[in-house]
Amino acid sequence: MHIEVISNVNEARADRITHRTAIVIDVLRATSTIVTALEAGAAGVLPVETVLEARALQRPYDLLAGERFCRKIAGFDLGNSPPDFIPETVKNRRVILTTTNGTRAMQKALRADTVLAGSLMNGSAAARAAIDLKRDLVLICSGSHDEFALEDGLCAGFIIDRLQAFSQTPAEVDDFGNAMLGFYRSTAGRLSEALLGSATGRRLAKMGFARDIEQCAKSDCSAAVPKLQGDTLVLG
Amino acid sequence: MHIEVISNVNEARADRITHRTAIVIDVLRATSTIVTALEAGAAGVLPVETVLEARALQRPYDLLAGERFCRKIAGFDLGNSPPDFIPETVKNRRVILTTTNGTRAMQKALRADTVLAGSLMNGSAAARAAIDLKRDLVLICSGSHDEFALEDGLCAGFIIDRLQAFSQTPAEVDDFGNAMLGFYRSTAGRLSEALLGSATGRRLAKMGFARDIEQCAKSDCSAAVPKLQGDTLVLG
Repeated sequence: MHIEVISNVNEARADRITHRTAIVIDVLRATSTIVTALEAGAAGVLPVETVLEARALQRPYDLLAGERFCRKIAGFDLGNSPPDFIPETVKNRRVILTTTNGTRAMQKALRADTVLAGSLMNGSAAARAAIDLKRDLVLICSGSHDEFALEDGLCAGFIIDRLQAFSQTPAEVDDFGNAMLGFYRSTAGRLSEALLGSATGRRLAKMGFARDIEQCAKSDCSAAVPKLQGDTLVLG
Repeated sequence: MHIEVISNVNEARADRITHRTAIVIDVLRATSTIVTALEAGAAGVLPVETVLEARALQRPYDLLAGERFCRKIAGFDLGNSPPDFIPETVKNRRVILTTTNGTRAMQKALRADTVLAGSLMNGSAAARAAIDLKRDLVLICSGSHDEFALEDGLCAGFIIDRLQAFSQTPAEVDDFGNAMLGFYRSTAGRLSEALLGSATGRRLAKMGFARDIEQCAKSDCSAAVPKLQGDTLVLG
C-alpha cells in the first residue's frame, strides 16, 4: 500500500485522489463531530458547503448542524461541538452539517474510490477499514483557511502509525506522511496538550470550547468509521 | 519573535516573506553545498536559475557549479556535491551555482530583509544569526518539484529547536513549525538514517551520492552562515 498525505484542502489535486481510498481529517472539529454523531445513532450525516444548501435540503425530522467562525449558525439545531451530538438528540435522525474546512475537504475527496472520515477518536478503526479496502491511501488534512493545521497532521501521523502496526506488508509512505508520523510519535501521550497549543485549539479554547478539544483528543474512543455513500456519511 | 515555516517553494507567497529574516533550506543539497563552499574559503556563491545565465555571468577565475536531475552539468567545474567543495578547489574563487529547487527558493526569498542559507550542517549558527537580526523569521523549505521534502522539514525543526534553546524570550511558532519541531525531536540522533529514507535521499543514494548524504546529515559541523549580499551569498 502506498500512503500519501495532503497537508491542506488547497493541495488536494484530483490526480492525488482518484483510484484511492481517501480519509478526510478535520480533527477540530468536523470529522470528530461526524464520528460522534454516527456513534450516537444518527441515521447519517450529509455534509454541505453552504447554509442555504443546508436549509434547502432539510426534510422533516432532519437536524441542521454547523458553524461559521466556530459558532453555531443562527436557527440551526446544533453547532459543531461533538459533545452535543448525544443519542437523545440525534438517534435515527439525519444530520445536515456545514462547516468551514471539513466540508470542503469532503467535496474534494469525492473522486476517491471510497471516502472515510478520520479523527483521533477513531484512528485505529479508520486504519483497519483502509487496510480492508486494499487500495492505495490518501489522507486529506482539511487544514484551516488553506493552511496546514497541526491537529490534522497529528491525526494523519496517528493513522499511519496504526496502519504500520496492523499491516501485514510494510506500507510505502511519502515524505510528508513520514514527517507527520515522526511528529505524532513525539507527541503521543500528550494529544490534548498538542491540540490546545494549535492555532485552532487556542482559538476554540478562547471561545469557550475547551470541552470540545478534550473530546476530540480522546484517541480511539470510537470504533465508528463514517463512510460516504452517495452524498451521505453512514457507518461503514 | 514569530516563526513561520513554508513547506515548499510553491507556497512561498510574498506576504509571508517581506519584513522578515528568511532562512532558505535545501538540505539535499544546495544549501549544504553553499555552506561547505563558503566554509572552504570561496569568495562567494552566486545562485542563478538557468545554465545559460550561469555561463553568461562567468568571469575569469569563477567556478561554474550545479546539477540537473542530480548530476553535474556538462562542462561545469563542479556538480552539487558538498564533499567536492574543498579549499584546494574553491578558495578565494566565486562560485556560480544553479540547482533545481534551492536556487528558486533563494529567488523567492529576495523580498526578505535578510536572506540566510540554512542546513543541518550550520543549524545552530543560523539560529543564532536569526536571533541577532531581531526580526520575525520565515524558514523556507525548498522541497522537491513543488512538494514537501522530508529533509528540509527536518532541518526547519532543528533550527526551531536551537532557536528555542538560545532565545531569551519564547518564540511564537506556527502550526507547521511546531509539527516540524516534533518531527525533528523524534528523529534527532538518527539524521543520516532519516535523510537516506527520504524520497530525494533514496534517489541520490541510488545514483551513487551516499557520501553527499552523510555530509549533509552532519549537524552543526559548520559555523558558516551564508548571507545574501546583493545577489551573492557571502559569510555573514
